[in-house]
Amino acid sequence: MNTTPIRPVAAADIESWDFEADVVIAGYGIAGVSAAIEAADAGAEVLVLERTGGWGGAAALAGGFVYLGGGTAVQKSCGFTDSVEEMKNFLRAALGPGVDEAKLTDYCEGSVAHFDWLVECGVPFKHTFWGEPGWKPPADDGLQYTGGENSAPFNTLAVPAPRGHVPQMDNKKSGEKGGGYMLMKPLSEKAESLGVRAEYDMRVQTLVTDADGRVVGLVAKQYGKEVTVRARRGVVLATGSFAYNDAMIEAYVPRLIGRPAASIEEHDGASIRMAQALGADLAHMDASEVAFFCDPQLFVRGILVNGRGQRYVPEDTYPGRVGQLTLLQNDNQAFLVIDEAAYEEGMAAPTATEQLRRTPTWVCETVEELEAEMGLPEGALTATVAMYNRHAANGADPLLGKKSEWVKPIGSPVAAIDLRGMTGGFTLGGLKTSVDSEVLHVTGEPIPGLFAAGRCTSGLSAWGYCSGISLGDGSFFGRRAGKAAAAEG
Amino acid sequence: MNTTPIRPVAAADIESWDFEADVVIAGYGIAGVSAAIEAADAGAEVLVLERTGGWGGAAALAGGFVYLGGGTAVQKSCGFTDSVEEMKNFLRAALGPGVDEAKLTDYCEGSVAHFDWLVECGVPFKHTFWGEPGWKPPADDGLQYTGGENSAPFNTLAVPAPRGHVPQMDNKKSGEKGGGYMLMKPLSEKAESLGVRAEYDMRVQTLVTDADGRVVGLVAKQYGKEVTVRARRGVVLATGSFAYNDAMIEAYVPRLIGRPAASIEEHDGASIRMAQALGADLAHMDASEVAFFCDPQLFVRGILVNGRGQRYVPEDTYPGRVGQLTLLQNDNQAFLVIDEAAYEEGMAAPTATEQLRRTPTWVCETVEELEAEMGLPEGALTATVAMYNRHAANGADPLLGKKSEWVKPIGSPVAAIDLRGMTGGFTLGGLKTSVDSEVLHVTGEPIPGLFAAGRCTSGLSAWGYCSGISLGDGSFFGRRAGKAAAAEG
Repeated sequence: MNTTPIRPVAAADIESWDFEADVVIAGYGIAGVSAAIEAADAGAEVLVLERTGGWGGAAALAGGFVYLGGGTAVQKSCGFTDSVEEMKNFLRAALGPGVDEAKLTDYCEGSVAHFDWLVECGVPFKHTFWGEPGWKPPADDGLQYTGGENSAPFNTLAVPAPRGHVPQMDNKKSGEKGGGYMLMKPLSEKAESLGVRAEYDMRVQTLVTDADGRVVGLVAKQYGKEVTVRARRGVVLATGSFAYNDAMIEAYVPRLIGRPAASIEEHDGASIRMAQALGADLAHMDASEVAFFCDPQLFVRGILVNGRGQRYVPEDTYPGRVGQLTLLQNDNQAFLVIDEAAYEEGMAAPTATEQLRRTPTWVCETVEELEAEMGLPEGALTATVAMYNRHAANGADPLLGKKSEWVKPIGSPVAAIDLRGMTGGFTLGGLKTSVDSEVLHVTGEPIPGLFAAGRCTSGLSAWGYCSGISLGDGSFFGRRAGKAAAAEG
Repeated sequence: MNTTPIRPVAAADIESWDFEADVVIAGYGIAGVSAAIEAADAGAEVLVLERTGGWGGAAALAGGFVYLGGGTAVQKSCGFTDSVEEMKNFLRAALGPGVDEAKLTDYCEGSVAHFDWLVECGVPFKHTFWGEPGWKPPADDGLQYTGGENSAPFNTLAVPAPRGHVPQMDNKKSGEKGGGYMLMKPLSEKAESLGVRAEYDMRVQTLVTDADGRVVGLVAKQYGKEVTVRARRGVVLATGSFAYNDAMIEAYVPRLIGRPAASIEEHDGASIRMAQALGADLAHMDASEVAFFCDPQLFVRGILVNGRGQRYVPEDTYPGRVGQLTLLQNDNQAFLVIDEAAYEEGMAAPTATEQLRRTPTWVCETVEELEAEMGLPEGALTATVAMYNRHAANGADPLLGKKSEWVKPIGSPVAAIDLRGMTGGFTLGGLKTSVDSEVLHVTGEPIPGLFAAGRCTSGLSAWGYCSGISLGDGSFFGRRAGKAAAAEG
């Protein structure tokens, strides 16, 4: 057999199968393990093919947020009221125009049950809330705002509730493992307890279809040797994003060229390519998470301005939103303007993100001097700070709606920190799938025998992002994929 | 034969062919006619399938700009110096990150010869330049700046030259026909003179492939009846954009939902879908042209501010760039702030775009009053105008680099014109093709027998746009498609 990578292989050309199972899953990250558990639970024999030497994927290296709401046990314990409707309203506004309404509805309506399922699988959540600005809790708190729910403009569009649920980290102080590890560990143990088998160092190459166009297996490489894997009921693609596929980044998300982040090198888009070769449709290929590499404890205490010295984002919002607006709408130009007192306070704040602290690039007595040193047009930054201070004196920010607790006039001495180019991210677009995680052909019909979930699919995000959406839709629609595949044939 | 739309058909299942030619071209717009001429010139028997009742496509309804440079006869006659390098430098900056360098190079290097070819085909160009702000010349001048070449920031990145070449309109005063008609008419006559045949009311459905995966024809519907068309050498897809395919817009360019413009309803993405069903790759699906429905003669004389009262674009740039920055980076929020004298001057300017004139929404004696009436935060617009006027007194605009000829302090009375939502556009993404207009499979290899050009492909634009790029890359790479298809088999 002589396969070209990506181009599908006919089942008739395969003489013998090296491996065989009811449901074959490519990728042992969050979507793969969730699919495996559900498929095994439904009585299917399950085989997971993982490219690296062990389970985990990007999920195990992640902060571990799962975006859940509508009244989870953690939300209730922490005193927050939430509802399916408010969750939907927020996500519809935050994730951008073009959100898949069917997926959004299912996800929000099934959110509490999904949380309970994770707990049943052994994922530990501490029922405590962390409310400080930051990418993640410094200790083991289990709940945080991770999408700007309580910031402008979203706090005027939906009743805010924190929905970033992070598994409790048992060895946080050592810094060895994060919340993502504590998500993946119990789930993979659960899968193992259900009899799920895994083959490692298994690099998926192409899909195998029968004469009717049904996906009946795949071809992979294990230790450099080509192997064939038969899937009696279905194949689930769960191999992650295309953040490390340079050609795809150039064709679909060129603003991310040279700046992959919060991603792993295995994210080469292979599943997307293999399914495209069968005529699979795509969605939201330009969408991307964008991290902003500066401590929110610092920038919430000052003002962020673009290359023209203009403010463009409420500084107390989700830092990923700061990243998106900086990279995608402000030419990746950002400067933090902050006075000495606020800077000292921010540096002394209880935060675990020491690597995100930044030192001042320019320090001056007046904003006029600062603006000149920064090379901004005369009067630009001066006008911005004057406008900000004028309202800050009353604790208000009518321009962008930063909450009054973070609004203080900028005094002297005043510094600016150069944050140009401090962004990076991963891709959110991919295969277009149904709410049952069927991979959809460009005709709109499902491709028989083929399912997908996680970041190789377009999930909930159409453009915007919240921390927890990837592990959220990956686990939620991963389960759907496992169930649907197990129910086939 | 029972075909599902889009899903490819096997040649073996076709009992007889209703039509047959060496090269079969779907779509009789600019890309189709250019492909037809070259294929016929190379000795191929050519058949064009057109969905409507006649040749023309969107091209015949368009303003007619063809983006060409490097020293065309028109540029020289009008006294402009240009070079391939400067053209490349400008386009690389203007069309966004991720531009296809191979296509850009070929296009710029072949630009003068392509102009000469159009002239040889009978396309008339008047050797006169129109230099006023506007979407197109009010009379029959043949050359205009159509990409912001002579505006900030591009005038600092490349030596400016106008490159928008528009065919001379012989009956402009009647308003019946535009430059696009005068482009399409001689080209279609040329094609006819070379023996190109056309079948009208022919709606292409699916591609036909042989056992080796080679495209050997297609299935279409003519007057509701299914017909088969054999292509002995190759099929060229040239059917236009997906601006009117709602599902594709939602999946790929959601910011254009509900706002197609400068496009025709035949632009339903059919060619993209048919080729995707064979595993064709895509590129830059989120890219879009964005028109801004306000007369440049008006807005160049004032300042454009976003929903926060901040300036965001030099008002003397290409109006399509104003549209893009408004829709994509400023939440589709735009207001024109202009004083009475400037407004009167703009309304009296020699311009053909009467339908783009706008009347003031608010008029006040002072900017403070205006800002309050507009509902902007106190001090926001005041600061913006003060900053602008401070430098305008010296004829300068250090914030955005508007040229001094358009920079004048804003006086009293002062008006604001509500331009929110005044955008619309068409899509620029599509099939990924080689410089020879071969449709590329996701493996990176060409799909044998299949070629494409025009707005069903991703051409020169990766994100940005200039007027004339679509007719430019459509005609240029349409010719390549015709040549390459004729050379097959």
